[in-house]
Amino acid sequence: MRYICVFFVASSVTASLARSPFNLGVRDDLHFPVVARATNKDGSLPVYKNPKASIEARVADLLPRMTLEEKVAQIIQGDINGWMNMNDPLDDTKTFNQTGLEEMMRTKAGAIWGGYLAPWDKIAFAITIGQRYLMENTTLGIPALFQTEGLHGFTDNGTIWPSPIGMAASFDTDLLRQAASTIADEAEGLGYSHVFAPVLDLSRELRWGRVEENFGEDPFLYVIASTAPSLAVGETQVRLQLLAWPQLASILLLLVVRKEACKSSILLNPSSVLTKAGRNIAQVSGGERELRTVFLKPFERACIQSLSIMTAYSSYDGIPAVADKHLLTDILRTEWDYKYWVTSDAGAVDLLTTTHGTCDTRECAAKTALENGLSGEMGGGTYTYLTLPDQIRAGTVDVHFLDDTVKAMLRTKFSLGLFENPYPYNDYVETLRTPETRTLMHQMDRESIVLLENKNGVLPLSKSIKSIALIGPQVNRVSFGDYVFFNATLNGVSPLDGFERLLSNTSIKINYAEGCKLWSNDNSGIPQAISAAQASDVAVVMVGTWSLDQTLLWTPGTNATTGEHVDLSDLGLVGSQLELVQAVKASGKPTIVVFVSGKPIAEPWISENADAVIQQFYPGELGGLALAEVIFGDVNPSGTAIHLEATAVIHRNHTGKLPVSFPRSVGTTPVFYNYIKGSRPLDPGQVLDDGTLRFGHQYVLDSPLPLWSFGHGLSYTTFSYSSLTLSKNPIKTSDNFNVAVTVRNTGAVSGKEVIQVYATDVTSSVATPNQELVGFKKISLDPGQSKIVSIQVNSTQLAVWTTKGTWSVEPGQFLIKIGTSDQVFLNTTLNVVV
Amino acid sequence: MRYICVFFVASSVTASLARSPFNLGVRDDLHFPVVARATNKDGSLPVYKNPKASIEARVADLLPRMTLEEKVAQIIQGDINGWMNMNDPLDDTKTFNQTGLEEMMRTKAGAIWGGYLAPWDKIAFAITIGQRYLMENTTLGIPALFQTEGLHGFTDNGTIWPSPIGMAASFDTDLLRQAASTIADEAEGLGYSHVFAPVLDLSRELRWGRVEENFGEDPFLYVIASTAPSLAVGETQVRLQLLAWPQLASILLLLVVRKEACKSSILLNPSSVLTKAGRNIAQVSGGERELRTVFLKPFERACIQSLSIMTAYSSYDGIPAVADKHLLTDILRTEWDYKYWVTSDAGAVDLLTTTHGTCDTRECAAKTALENGLSGEMGGGTYTYLTLPDQIRAGTVDVHFLDDTVKAMLRTKFSLGLFENPYPYNDYVETLRTPETRTLMHQMDRESIVLLENKNGVLPLSKSIKSIALIGPQVNRVSFGDYVFFNATLNGVSPLDGFERLLSNTSIKINYAEGCKLWSNDNSGIPQAISAAQASDVAVVMVGTWSLDQTLLWTPGTNATTGEHVDLSDLGLVGSQLELVQAVKASGKPTIVVFVSGKPIAEPWISENADAVIQQFYPGELGGLALAEVIFGDVNPSGTAIHLEATAVIHRNHTGKLPVSFPRSVGTTPVFYNYIKGSRPLDPGQVLDDGTLRFGHQYVLDSPLPLWSFGHGLSYTTFSYSSLTLSKNPIKTSDNFNVAVTVRNTGAVSGKEVIQVYATDVTSSVATPNQELVGFKKISLDPGQSKIVSIQVNSTQLAVWTTKGTWSVEPGQFLIKIGTSDQVFLNTTLNVVV
Repeated sequence: MRYICVFFVASSVTASLARSPFNLGVRDDLHFPVVARATNKDGSLPVYKNPKASIEARVADLLPRMTLEEKVAQIIQGDINGWMNMNDPLDDTKTFNQTGLEEMMRTKAGAIWGGYLAPWDKIAFAITIGQRYLMENTTLGIPALFQTEGLHGFTDNGTIWPSPIGMAASFDTDLLRQAASTIADEAEGLGYSHVFAPVLDLSRELRWGRVEENFGEDPFLYVIASTAPSLAVGETQVRLQLLAWPQLASILLLLVVRKEACKSSILLNPSSVLTKAGRNIAQVSGGERELRTVFLKPFERACIQSLSIMTAYSSYDGIPAVADKHLLTDILRTEWDYKYWVTSDAGAVDLLTTTHGTCDTRECAAKTALENGLSGEMGGGTYTYLTLPDQIRAGTVDVHFLDDTVKAMLRTKFSLGLFENPYPYNDYVETLRTPETRTLMHQMDRESIVLLENKNGVLPLSKSIKSIALIGPQVNRVSFGDYVFFNATLNGVSPLDGFERLLSNTSIKINYAEGCKLWSNDNSGIPQAISAAQASDVAVVMVGTWSLDQTLLWTPGTNATTGEHVDLSDLGLVGSQLELVQAVKASGKPTIVVFVSGKPIAEPWISENADAVIQQFYPGELGGLALAEVIFGDVNPSGTAIHLEATAVIHRNHTGKLPVSFPRSVGTTPVFYNYIKGSRPLDPGQVLDDGTLRFGHQYVLDSPLPLWSFGHGLSYTTFSYSSLTLSKNPIKTSDNFNVAVTVRNTGAVSGKEVIQVYATDVTSSVATPNQELVGFKKISLDPGQSKIVSIQVNSTQLAVWTTKGTWSVEPGQFLIKIGTSDQVFLNTTLNVVV
Repeated sequence: MRYICVFFVASSVTASLARSPFNLGVRDDLHFPVVARATNKDGSLPVYKNPKASIEARVADLLPRMTLEEKVAQIIQGDINGWMNMNDPLDDTKTFNQTGLEEMMRTKAGAIWGGYLAPWDKIAFAITIGQRYLMENTTLGIPALFQTEGLHGFTDNGTIWPSPIGMAASFDTDLLRQAASTIADEAEGLGYSHVFAPVLDLSRELRWGRVEENFGEDPFLYVIASTAPSLAVGETQVRLQLLAWPQLASILLLLVVRKEACKSSILLNPSSVLTKAGRNIAQVSGGERELRTVFLKPFERACIQSLSIMTAYSSYDGIPAVADKHLLTDILRTEWDYKYWVTSDAGAVDLLTTTHGTCDTRECAAKTALENGLSGEMGGGTYTYLTLPDQIRAGTVDVHFLDDTVKAMLRTKFSLGLFENPYPYNDYVETLRTPETRTLMHQMDRESIVLLENKNGVLPLSKSIKSIALIGPQVNRVSFGDYVFFNATLNGVSPLDGFERLLSNTSIKINYAEGCKLWSNDNSGIPQAISAAQASDVAVVMVGTWSLDQTLLWTPGTNATTGEHVDLSDLGLVGSQLELVQAVKASGKPTIVVFVSGKPIAEPWISENADAVIQQFYPGELGGLALAEVIFGDVNPSGTAIHLEATAVIHRNHTGKLPVSFPRSVGTTPVFYNYIKGSRPLDPGQVLDDGTLRFGHQYVLDSPLPLWSFGHGLSYTTFSYSSLTLSKNPIKTSDNFNVAVTVRNTGAVSGKEVIQVYATDVTSSVATPNQELVGFKKISLDPGQSKIVSIQVNSTQLAVWTTKGTWSVEPGQFLIKIGTSDQVFLNTTLNVVV
């Protein structure tokens, strides 16, 4: 099932003042008449049109003015293709079909899909036409949310950032915030107010194709991003929230509002590590405690601040997400008092009849989704919500469900300032693909790279080497993750390009050999790769997974190993890639393996035998350059080609940490670090390289331990930790506390470090994780420099979901650790008392 | 963690009349005095000693007579080793330690573990001593439940039956009932009244070591066994229940009572397909709907008839099984009104402190388990329940929890008639290893074998062939599953023995070659295997998994691939076994592959290339002979050696069906057939034998379809199905109905067939399985014979667990299919109306 997907991008009133609406010029085809606008009987401006009125007052004023059909149209997603031909990416003809426009706005006018690859001015034209029609030619003048795609970059030729799992590896909250902000900036100018953003499931079922669209396996990694925009400063104002939300086969709505009324949107529906066999849209097993503790707990506070939520495709414990009353009404609307827009994913309402089997008619599907979910219907299906007017007139659906859903949509629009500022900006180009954005993206590309192994300090390479072999199918390739548009890779820098640029003013010779294809067992290129290695001082072998753009990914006959609807049954390298790595290593040259991938690759041989291993999750446009910079441990700020890419940022060290654990094999998954206590009995067996069998019990011939665990990532420098202190001990159950530690750069180069705080609830009334990340901070230290790093932990982080169905911080001991999930530098015991 | 484990085996009063108590003879060492027995003040016999009084009256009379210490002792498991030296299996000295006896009975006297390998008369002596002490030398004279092991055979040198997964493959309810009955018979004579029986989790997480201890992946397969002892006759009297009960790392208590008051016991606690990565004791994810629908629904009615229940080791949605109030008190005691004995598994209460982390003291563990579970404590841990007297005196534990638990134990004992008949029988040998039992076991061994592939009718082999190669590490080996005692295999017939016996009066030459070990990659024996194949008309290659007896399985340095605490990360053949199969096949001779294993083996190459494939789950003692008989399609009733083994049973056909689906690889699991609708999107890829990659999406390079699905099993004959009729259509929501079909043997030999009825709830208020087995019947047909087979389906089979937390049969259409899970012979639509 294909779906198209939405960031919220909208300006508030004050933003609109700064940029003027897109100018259509003198157009003969703009001949539709301006109708009378809604006014009060006394001729005064209705309350809903008054930007100074409260949102509730505006909603209360507008809703009764709407006809039944207008209400239903407000909760069905329309499509810009209804009045523009968006099918040819190169067609820049700015004409539109008025009949189609009128029909679209009559029936589907709440949110309107506009996520097409098209010339920018055509998009601005199309949206302007649509919004103008709504504002000027409909009775009530309700603007639409125009929507596009922006999982990791505005897809219509905007700047492409690393896939979410890569951005998560940066552990850089501020940079994540800026990434989302610039993605929104790029889309906003063209008139979009809603951009579809990452799938924020937890990456615990690694076979699933959309792992790359997640921010990793740990919920807290995102929570902190939502509540502390700057890790260095104790801000509480939320400008942007990047929230992990567990869901399967759907997406997070990332809301970016530019002004003070900082709102965010998250995607509501749980997935689980235990999706049915890692298959897209498959059912999810899980109970209320796992739902609350793993999936809902971290987001509860953030959720009530958000402006939009999207539901998932899957079912959880037998209830289809799109019609999950417990989740969408009882928890979201009642417990959390959420008042804003909720929408289904594309075609998801139809799944009630075609997949979940909980309805036999479109009428049932529409009724069930509306009444349980109080949510709108996205396109991509049969538009079951078109049955609602008749159902409401017949009395089978109570109009209050419709009214509540429409109110939620109107609150979102009023909150966005959309009634006052619905149009594209004339100067949209000023926020598209700016050098500043490119610099930030470049920084993200660097920070996202994780050094997994570095035996004998083989990295960074010296500029004094004479030659380097670049080997493998990922070298001369831009490997973006899914959710980019056709030909987006043309904007990308491949590793081969990156190394050439970085080394252009050196005498280092690059010996390139592809070695093998990603998708073939043809090993005929391996001898050439061996020759390249033998001719060089060092070999870098780049292998991994691959995805495709949104056109090719869904084209029959293409191949990929990751991305939406591309689910793996094995996590090893495909085809001849492992053989290539082994052959290069056998050449005797130092062999650095780079995984370019959308998910963990399970290759124990490489972890054991490569001289160094680097993980680059699908990068942004400058991924190839960032990789070269990391491998050589340097950025030349005065180089010419480099200078263009990196004017201000100088890194002597990469600093990524794994947001997801790497299993030894698919049979040892799930392998996430924060498993429930007692769930990892350990008595590993092993198959030696020569085939010899060493028997164990968990597992008979393998280990449940990951190759590398969540939080792992090496540095070119070293850090010492000392003086772990708690700001208060014991604390009361409602006390927040700070964990302070002195960190010193004890190596020779400057570097960044992610200080990670883990907690273990030693004794709890229910079984809790063996450890959980409860805080982190990323700092930079020069050689010899030390800092006292203080990280706040909220008491809510210590709470358990009790058997009484409530949150409780239970008195007792908590083990507080500084380190990574599998390496403890310092620890102490926190006592919690009543 | 090791645990020892319990069938209920007890005689009622009437049974005791038939067999006289074990005679100790004149014994100098029986010198402890007979104490005053409890009497009423008026000297009359207390009500609790009156076998004609009601059980409730007897319980009410006895409980107030018990001291606090006596009550606590009643719910802690003792050990026969306390007064006998049971550590040397060959020691038949019948002396006992009186101090130890008295101490044991003072503190741990409710159930007493006696599951040791020992001479039978020593066991009878030990139990007699113990019971006599309790009956004659304690104030109240409460007998103990003596317990032993009987997962698939009374372990102390009793008859060993196939492992449960193998017995399930027979789909023969009556034979299952007889198996359990004879196991109980063997133990009962020696004085045991409680025999630990199969782990009745559903086999959905195939990596788990205890899959062989389950009855497969489908709950209904066991339910029918519990409610229809004879499939051919519509009996409703339950003599024995073999119940699947979902639980992890624990066992089912199989109750066998011999008389009319037919009771059964089941194990209470849910596991799930999604146990943490298939590791023993690991936590289980799941919600209330999955709990009710998959795990509890089929057993609810049966459970309230049972006499004993054992809890599991794992946690479910964060709640440790041993202290799961929702399950053990709210559902079991309150909803189901269950009044009998519940016990923890060995050492499980201590896991609250050592594994689950929900307690920090033994006192907490005892309190938590008792108050939430109303259950007793088995040994194997620190006996936390010894803290209960002090806790109760201190007021931290209310005595009513203790009283309720003791009452449950007393009800079980009174129901069993144990107060009247506590002793071993003098003629215990008459029920041990009888020829009748051996004949039944032989029949079970035959019926458990499943024919998976039979290309070009290569099977059965003709007796006119000149030679047969028997190749592989399973040929000259008795491969029993776990839960047999040391050296049990000495009673078994290996396949090599079996073929020799079957062919002893023919001129067929057997060419045997081991080929390789099960546990090694040494392939040096393969050339000899090829030679054996080349010298023969046909080759049978026997490969698989292996387990060990209860001594060796837990001995450091041994190896196994299945059994308790032996969890796999890969489901393929270990070591050189696949290479051996491929080499034999390459010899050009017809190659029949036999999997002897405790779980599905995932080897697609074998399914595609072998000329025939046979699945023999770990067999009983005559497994090797049964295998030969099946392969030659015949049993010679007049043969000499054969005659001894099979006096009455003549099978010209095997009839096993798979109780569990076989995945293509571990990465495609779980693969159970009754998955929730929509959870198996299908667009398979493939790695061809030459390494060529054909890309798909679910999965990229494999298929989510099983190699063979639940219910599959070929026959040497063929059957036609016709005239599917429903006894009533439409039905009302509370109506049971019958599915009738005419089945005809259209082949040349007689054969048995398992007629399977599957139902799909076309539209339901919650997501339901794509199909579910709702009925089956095994029949035998001669060539040309036809029968009308009528199978009753109860309306409760159609019920869903609604969002309101109730069971409901929802009006609408149900698709009724006759066939196997992936092959439909006939189908029709049932309409359900209000």
